[in-house]
Amino acid sequence: MQTLNTTPKADGFWMPGEFEPHAGCWMLWPERPDVWRNGGKPAQRAYAQVAMAIAEFEPVTMGVSATQYEHARHMLPESIRIVEISYDDAWLRDVGPTMVINAQGEVRGVDWYFNAWGGLHSGQYFPWDKDELVAQKLLEMERFDRYRAPLILEGGSIHVDGEGTLLVTEQCLLHPNRNPKLRQADIEAYLKDYLNVEVVIWLGEGVHNDETNGHVDNLCCFIRPGEVALTWTDDERDPQHEISMDAYQRLLAAVDAKGRKLAIHKIHQPDPMFITDKEARGIDIMPTSSLRNASKPLAGSYINFYIANGGIIAPQFNDHRDQKALETLRVLFPQHKIVGIPLARDILLGGGNIHCITQQIPLGKNS
Amino acid sequence: MQTLNTTPKADGFWMPGEFEPHAGCWMLWPERPDVWRNGGKPAQRAYAQVAMAIAEFEPVTMGVSATQYEHARHMLPESIRIVEISYDDAWLRDVGPTMVINAQGEVRGVDWYFNAWGGLHSGQYFPWDKDELVAQKLLEMERFDRYRAPLILEGGSIHVDGEGTLLVTEQCLLHPNRNPKLRQADIEAYLKDYLNVEVVIWLGEGVHNDETNGHVDNLCCFIRPGEVALTWTDDERDPQHEISMDAYQRLLAAVDAKGRKLAIHKIHQPDPMFITDKEARGIDIMPTSSLRNASKPLAGSYINFYIANGGIIAPQFNDHRDQKALETLRVLFPQHKIVGIPLARDILLGGGNIHCITQQIPLGKNS
Repeated sequence: MQTLNTTPKADGFWMPGEFEPHAGCWMLWPERPDVWRNGGKPAQRAYAQVAMAIAEFEPVTMGVSATQYEHARHMLPESIRIVEISYDDAWLRDVGPTMVINAQGEVRGVDWYFNAWGGLHSGQYFPWDKDELVAQKLLEMERFDRYRAPLILEGGSIHVDGEGTLLVTEQCLLHPNRNPKLRQADIEAYLKDYLNVEVVIWLGEGVHNDETNGHVDNLCCFIRPGEVALTWTDDERDPQHEISMDAYQRLLAAVDAKGRKLAIHKIHQPDPMFITDKEARGIDIMPTSSLRNASKPLAGSYINFYIANGGIIAPQFNDHRDQKALETLRVLFPQHKIVGIPLARDILLGGGNIHCITQQIPLGKNS
Repeated sequence: MQTLNTTPKADGFWMPGEFEPHAGCWMLWPERPDVWRNGGKPAQRAYAQVAMAIAEFEPVTMGVSATQYEHARHMLPESIRIVEISYDDAWLRDVGPTMVINAQGEVRGVDWYFNAWGGLHSGQYFPWDKDELVAQKLLEMERFDRYRAPLILEGGSIHVDGEGTLLVTEQCLLHPNRNPKLRQADIEAYLKDYLNVEVVIWLGEGVHNDETNGHVDNLCCFIRPGEVALTWTDDERDPQHEISMDAYQRLLAAVDAKGRKLAIHKIHQPDPMFITDKEARGIDIMPTSSLRNASKPLAGSYINFYIANGGIIAPQFNDHRDQKALETLRVLFPQHKIVGIPLARDILLGGGNIHCITQQIPLGKNS
């Protein structure tokens, strides 16, 4: 692995859309008991359900700590590759690299800086030194060259159409706990250099109560160039109503890099959810991570799905809107098989969902 | 990675000679302070010298623990791939897989059982649970299918000609601290099944004072089919004289799988070496490993070299016979560049040498 001193844009590389062909998908195995209830066992079952669902469509690699290696090997079928790696928690979308590709089909990775979603004062845990190395280790293991982007950023805070357009939220990318010394124009310039996009569509806030400071991947995503899906609520008393309405209006006003207006597909969110007493009692209280106590609200959203090669892996919450969400996805992705993950609540309890725990590797001649 | 229930022989796979083309080489990074003096720093410099020498000829992957990852990344050039892996000590030849290949160029790995060269009572350290998983992890990372051989065996105790002939020592393979319940005929049957050889040449003892119980790779190796190199001493008072003479006579009497008599090339060993007081003072004394105290004899041998693609990486001991050994290797390998490793003593201090810390991956269509 070479660490390059140029930028993807300068070298003719760009981030492709998630709906473009993948070589495979990477994940990390959950285990820390101050985030995941009952020693991580319910989350591990949920992650295994996601991994096995994706593995129906593309190769999956699960990064696993030395201590959990044999247990994960026992929990997952042989078709899923397991590799040893150390990490602080299991959010490969956010700690992994953002992969870029060029016209010749070469694949490289962008390694962002990471501060556990907000650093010492408002981040989720301390330390995050192992997370910080995950992207580099993944790229080196898979023999991809690496760009080191001079920006604190998580993969869940960006979505692209692969044709020059980027979706982000102001709440996250301009949050003072990420890159306080950079102005919006500086950040936009870096995004254009490292993702090779021409148009950045700035949404406002992310999903209400999202502990990532509003990652776009829980709010809104491209389903193909020119079309986005947006989490929605009809309940005007829910703070999410104003957030989604604001996003909707910004999306309506936007023009993408190809000069298109966007088609916007709403997916109604599940009913409000909270950590239960019983769930909270299963979570270790430790000084090194933020408290996950009973009644803490959960930022549930059907937008947090993963697009595999020919499959959509989507969260289910045992909610009366689950079926409708799957039906909408069936309409939006008529060429894909839609797979619901019944255990997704146990991912949400940790603060994210299926998109947050996955990262696609684009199909290229070196991937 | 699939774990197969068949054998290489049944599936038409065999172990190729080390002198056949490689996809690359794997190593592990030394660090344990009860084996390696001065916190492992001199050994790390020696391993780095070996890795960089091999990297001139073929790709090198260095497995490194989480704690040493960044230090190793700093010590090694970017051309050497570093991957995180946990291990008990740094002898990839012995804890890694033995790679096999078939006529279609498919590559698979044989994962032997490992007991730290002798188990609880006469092995080198306890525990060895991390070492036991290294072969499996390597195969899974590199996407090779795996055979699990029902035998305690280290890669350093076997050498093949790639044409049906295997070299081993009775001292090691029949030692009661390896597979005490198996008779010689059982062991030979397993070797034939898992390496797909027809003729096993049993030498007697390995190098005097070798703490592996006489690994063949410190005593004798194939340099090509029909030709072997043997460590030698003219000093009849040295116990090694009788050992090498016995090996010589057995080799003279042997007929290989192709019906050939063997050409035997002697390489005179360096003068006797011992751990110095100063070296011993740099080694931690711990209850979990065998004592490496001052005056402990070292089993130095020029046979413990690595054959890379077009290069021979050979130990040097600051001994008056170093140059002669290199000259002999130049004659034996006229097509190879011969590279001496001046820091090899710091590998020998840990109980082995260049061949013991390397493992070739044959060139195949999936490697």
